[in-house]
Amino acid sequence: MKLQGKVVIAQGGGPTAVINQSLVGAILESRKFPQVTKIYGAVNGIRGILNEDFLDLTQETNHNLEQVANSASSALLSTRDKPDEAYCAQAFQVLKAHDVRYFFYIGGNDSSDTVRIINEKAKAENYDFRAIHIPKTIDNDLVLNDHTPGYGSAARFVAESFVGANLDNRSLPGVYIGVVMGRHAGFLTAAAAMAKKFPDDGPHLIYLPERAFDKEKFLNDVKTTYDKYGRCVIAVSEGITDRKGIPIISTLTDTVERDAHGNVQLSGTGALGDLLSEYIKKNLKIGRVRADTFGYLQRSFMPCVSDIDQIEAREVGEKAAHFAIWHNIDCSITIQRVGDYAVEYKPVPLIEIAAKTRLMPDKYINSDGNYVTEQFLSYCRPLIGSGFKQPARLRASKIEKILR
Amino acid sequence: MKLQGKVVIAQGGGPTAVINQSLVGAILESRKFPQVTKIYGAVNGIRGILNEDFLDLTQETNHNLEQVANSASSALLSTRDKPDEAYCAQAFQVLKAHDVRYFFYIGGNDSSDTVRIINEKAKAENYDFRAIHIPKTIDNDLVLNDHTPGYGSAARFVAESFVGANLDNRSLPGVYIGVVMGRHAGFLTAAAAMAKKFPDDGPHLIYLPERAFDKEKFLNDVKTTYDKYGRCVIAVSEGITDRKGIPIISTLTDTVERDAHGNVQLSGTGALGDLLSEYIKKNLKIGRVRADTFGYLQRSFMPCVSDIDQIEAREVGEKAAHFAIWHNIDCSITIQRVGDYAVEYKPVPLIEIAAKTRLMPDKYINSDGNYVTEQFLSYCRPLIGSGFKQPARLRASKIEKILR
Repeated sequence: MKLQGKVVIAQGGGPTAVINQSLVGAILESRKFPQVTKIYGAVNGIRGILNEDFLDLTQETNHNLEQVANSASSALLSTRDKPDEAYCAQAFQVLKAHDVRYFFYIGGNDSSDTVRIINEKAKAENYDFRAIHIPKTIDNDLVLNDHTPGYGSAARFVAESFVGANLDNRSLPGVYIGVVMGRHAGFLTAAAAMAKKFPDDGPHLIYLPERAFDKEKFLNDVKTTYDKYGRCVIAVSEGITDRKGIPIISTLTDTVERDAHGNVQLSGTGALGDLLSEYIKKNLKIGRVRADTFGYLQRSFMPCVSDIDQIEAREVGEKAAHFAIWHNIDCSITIQRVGDYAVEYKPVPLIEIAAKTRLMPDKYINSDGNYVTEQFLSYCRPLIGSGFKQPARLRASKIEKILR
Repeated sequence: MKLQGKVVIAQGGGPTAVINQSLVGAILESRKFPQVTKIYGAVNGIRGILNEDFLDLTQETNHNLEQVANSASSALLSTRDKPDEAYCAQAFQVLKAHDVRYFFYIGGNDSSDTVRIINEKAKAENYDFRAIHIPKTIDNDLVLNDHTPGYGSAARFVAESFVGANLDNRSLPGVYIGVVMGRHAGFLTAAAAMAKKFPDDGPHLIYLPERAFDKEKFLNDVKTTYDKYGRCVIAVSEGITDRKGIPIISTLTDTVERDAHGNVQLSGTGALGDLLSEYIKKNLKIGRVRADTFGYLQRSFMPCVSDIDQIEAREVGEKAAHFAIWHNIDCSITIQRVGDYAVEYKPVPLIEIAAKTRLMPDKYINSDGNYVTEQFLSYCRPLIGSGFKQPARLRASKIEKILR
């Protein structure tokens, strides 16, 4: 007996460059099933469900859907709401009222938890209902996944940023710090290493949230690199903390200031990079120290998308329809690497993904805690996609001096 | 009588994504002339000449040169040295000692002034010598030029950044500020406007160094936009000043802090964006205010290059060889727009370019001083090149609510 009813799709959390591939994959595949009566899109994620704010995606042209698939950032808009039991109960009542039988939520670990709770509400009422979490996060921090859609494209952006930053720093030497997103997991910061081609290329140092950041050791690392190459390019995760788990930004308080209430001014995305720059300038007497915070560009820059990431994001969307409608199961869809390079999509119970965070495994971080390993490079290389351009250098030989 | 001797090529100032196209254009074209005995590249700009630090570019493979042409940032490395008369006199003696008869310097207005002074040293000694300034600057601020190589690619990067930032801000609303390079000229910041597709798309406001920045009016502009769209995306030039020409960053001192000596902390590239964010939060009570400073990525991001910019950068390099070797003249090469869209390259005397700065003409700025005009859009559109992708939106209609 086929489960007949509507599909609701929503997108939650921060955007990615490929999140609409998953949306369009799920829509187009769902349209093929006669038991699907309509396909609704909830506007602004779970909040759109609560507000009955739905678009009728059944009546969207194929051409426009393909255009949307190639556009960055949630086309259904998003939300930062983290629903509790009551919120989810209310959302479920809306879904039930609209005869929704299939719910697909594209998002990170918070979103997967929302899917789990709503699914439990349905079970409690014996309402026949399929709920699927479609993975998405540039942080790459979902457990039981080899990697997650969105990561490859963001990683490519970070790698390309460091390609450019390294060339810039080579032509006008000094110290350069690039601050990369990722509060707990260092995968995105680690991708900076993909920029390196020649042995003296940057990034020379990479600092991840998985390792305690020691300010003294940092200074020493920078000095050693600067003495060796006459320059230093550094990738730093925004989430670095000290041994006690205190964010580094607040341990640099002797160089920042406090407001009238005595609170440290931490606001604004440029702060960590600027403080680390000051710290280097002050302690190492290096004149040219610059910092960029890559910020929001990392998650929605359209010209720098990984083709592998696009394809996989599309496929996890399609698989949502398959698992729910053909196989009649509730799950989170995971990506498993089964070849170099090939993947499979495996359903896992929602409870196993929900609200958990995966960190960089030890094998990907060097023993000094200031760079990645070859194993990480092998892991990351296919994910950033084909056509990743590395720069060339002049190889001409030097002319002998005649004046001195 | 053909002037026989060596060619020296150098690159000065900040890098661009296409500066090596000019280098390779000049090398390959110079190689065709039998009177050119060797082609040297000076390492680190004018400083390389002073130090006799030359590469023999005559012995660089064509393949590698083409690879270098497609790599961002000065392949011959660069310098920030601003040579005076004595410095140039010394550099000229090195050129003379190496029997250099052709000097091509790729750079901005400082570099053109260096070319002019060295050329005068040669004239003073009756040394037969051709000197050419090849234009380059992402700031687009060379006088007598329609635009300059490097601008189109940086403009495309800025436009793409605002495409992404606007999508991101639309999915998770608030106020977003993107701080763009350009200390005196607003061309690069203005390019943010190319991101706009639908009428409610950002950037909604653009602030340029050509117009005095009024903090009260700014708040009012932001409030009006936020009230209308529920969000606001802003492009701000790093060089904005108040009516007295004082940088805005130092007029926001009531929200920044001072060091032990009472000096305002201005260091670090993220400061202006962070301060403007704080200023909005404090005065407009808007919770979600974010700022990115695009920083160095703007001038050396390889995946986001304008094809028009690449071609023109290549051509001005080739023209250097033509003007110097065929036509026997000293000049700065300028780009003239002669069709929509077509250009010609016109030689102008070095003195007319050297050390001058072009600003945005009034016709490109709206009367409120907070956006660009249609004329600017027409001006900028061809420069960012072909294949500029604009995002699509879902157009599906809303479902009627059944619960309330």
